Amino acid sequence: MTDAFRPSFDLLATDPSGARRGRLHTAHGPVETPAFMPVGTLATVKALTPDEVRATGAGMILGNTYHLYLRPGHEVVRDLGGLHRFMNWDGPILTDSGGFQVFSLAGFRKLSEEGVAFQSHLDGSRHLLTPERVVGIQEALGSDVMMVLDECPPHPCDRRYLAESLARTNRWAERSLAARTRPELALFGILQGGTDPDLRRRAAESLAELPFDGYAVGGLSVGEGQDAMLRTLDATTPHMPRHRPRYLMGVGTPLDLVEAVERGIDLFDCVLPTRTARNGLLFTSQGRVAIKHARFERDSRPLDEACDCTTCQSYSRAYLRHLYRSRELLASRLNTLHNLYYYQTLMRRIRAAIEAGDYGRFAETFRSSEAGRSERDVARRKTRR
Amino acid sequence: MTDAFRPSFDLLATDPSGARRGRLHTAHGPVETPAFMPVGTLATVKALTPDEVRATGAGMILGNTYHLYLRPGHEVVRDLGGLHRFMNWDGPILTDSGGFQVFSLAGFRKLSEEGVAFQSHLDGSRHLLTPERVVGIQEALGSDVMMVLDECPPHPCDRRYLAESLARTNRWAERSLAARTRPELALFGILQGGTDPDLRRRAAESLAELPFDGYAVGGLSVGEGQDAMLRTLDATTPHMPRHRPRYLMGVGTPLDLVEAVERGIDLFDCVLPTRTARNGLLFTSQGRVAIKHARFERDSRPLDEACDCTTCQSYSRAYLRHLYRSRELLASRLNTLHNLYYYQTLMRRIRAAIEAGDYGRFAETFRSSEAGRSERDVARRKTRR
Repeated sequence: MTDAFRPSFDLLATDPSGARRGRLHTAHGPVETPAFMPVGTLATVKALTPDEVRATGAGMILGNTYHLYLRPGHEVVRDLGGLHRFMNWDGPILTDSGGFQVFSLAGFRKLSEEGVAFQSHLDGSRHLLTPERVVGIQEALGSDVMMVLDECPPHPCDRRYLAESLARTNRWAERSLAARTRPELALFGILQGGTDPDLRRRAAESLAELPFDGYAVGGLSVGEGQDAMLRTLDATTPHMPRHRPRYLMGVGTPLDLVEAVERGIDLFDCVLPTRTARNGLLFTSQGRVAIKHARFERDSRPLDEACDCTTCQSYSRAYLRHLYRSRELLASRLNTLHNLYYYQTLMRRIRAAIEAGDYGRFAETFRSSEAGRSERDVARRKTRR
Repeated sequence: MTDAFRPSFDLLATDPSGARRGRLHTAHGPVETPAFMPVGTLATVKALTPDEVRATGAGMILGNTYHLYLRPGHEVVRDLGGLHRFMNWDGPILTDSGGFQVFSLAGFRKLSEEGVAFQSHLDGSRHLLTPERVVGIQEALGSDVMMVLDECPPHPCDRRYLAESLARTNRWAERSLAARTRPELALFGILQGGTDPDLRRRAAESLAELPFDGYAVGGLSVGEGQDAMLRTLDATTPHMPRHRPRYLMGVGTPLDLVEAVERGIDLFDCVLPTRTARNGLLFTSQGRVAIKHARFERDSRPLDEACDCTTCQSYSRAYLRHLYRSRELLASRLNTLHNLYYYQTLMRRIRAAIEAGDYGRFAETFRSSEAGRSERDVARRKTRR
């Protein structure tokens, strides 16, 4: 990396459906978009080595600022040469701002114009995160893409509070930009606004006036249901800058990705494939599979006969079931490898469909596939709850 | 493997010290001895894939009959093509007989001339293991080396009971040989006798009259201390058949291996390197290291600067400490990889020293090394307790 490096985004192709094929240039190389980032909360994508993460096809991963700030500490990571060297991952890394975790994990917390004070979920120690501090922490980590501190309002939430929160988030966005000292690291703004189309549009328009390297849609996939999420995207993405990457935070299921790409989203992250893998829930071309089921006891077939991943090439359903029931560490590994491979294969196919100008048909085919129908059933059951 | 295959052992060289260099021929290929077998209790060496186990230098692994019998069940494994295919390991496998686990893990148990009745530690179900049944289970698993059912008497234990137990173990040994139906799978007898030199000699001599493919020394490393263990070996191995492999069960520390090889032992297994790895205790050329220590917080050096394993080549002490403190799955993986590599490197050096006819000096050098002194300190502390 030279001093002159600046992050940038090439919009390579736009499909008639609205899907975008792009390339995000970071200090640690390019990322082909649409892209899905596996989550590596504590400087490790749980259960896997960096080589394995790369072998699934992942180009960029996500780290959590809140977690790394508390343990091992951003100054420790900085002194050890930054997050890339610390965890032995030489590809691009995006870190979230910690805002979401402060609101979901921390004990006591107090929001003010200055920032957010909170108690660590680990040891109860008190901390203050401000927009400036959050940029400083991420610069210490050396994240290729940093995220601004934002408030993630709960769902549901009244319109008046949402509007206030939005205004504060925008003031914080300006402070974040001013705090930046390493221009080779990208900084993304975050759009809030709940499921209110008007607030989302206003958020998009006001953030667009600020010179961010990319724009994220936050505050979705927090219980509003898939339909509401997609309606919100419909009301948001048309107002976002066309030549900057668009990142839908914390989303989602395979079907969520397919739908959001059609609405012009370029980047995703989610714990779903890794967390469900550790819980024995696997994504396959035939839909979701709970590997613990007794029907797999003597099933010598691979988990997914259509999958080329190491897990499917080397092990039977019976063995995966045995490992999971026996709580063996290898279960988490083999399951995580498969789920991430499934997600990255989906992203490869998404990119190819956009390049072919055929994304609408691809999305329709996916929706009516076994996998798509399985996901729609899951989404419906969730909405009913 | 052809129908005509029969297991055999070549004694390639004997060092002036008494150490032996050999080659055990199994249905799944040869094993260079002295060899250390990583423990793969439930059809997985915990935390690692078979490829990784092989990459540490391990040629043969151990599976646990008791555990596999209870879960997933030997008939399930047999129906899926045997243990090798089930777990995707194509090298030799030795299985213990389950006797040790019945005496250490099972709830209720009742010993009779017929065998041992016990309750599963998993669900309380009742089972009877007889010498014949144990051979049948191991043949269903397809173990390259099967072990006879034996009683492992507690330590300490009175001489009269030991003598009775020994006589029964010998009767069970004869029944085990008679029950065998797959002659391509080796069957090893097990010598008991506590720390009584006279009983051990008698056990060795009477078992030697039976046509086993190898002979194991059982009932050691159960709390008697290293000195007593080595004295017992001194009284035992001279009476064991010279042209059959000798296996010291459940042993041990690096120093135990060095000492036992000098007393003519060819095979070892132990949970020590894998279990301590998961507990953050690592074997290095400078002695044992507890990776959680605060002094490693910002230590950018590899765990062991003399080690070529992937863990030491790719990660810092600070990162290993962070993973361990964060209870990350990757900690168990990287630590296990290192400890097994350490053990296999020791075995390679042991074999080379025997080939060079220089084992006595090798052992002396090891004893006075940092690693050897660290192990002696551990042994002393244990004896004092």
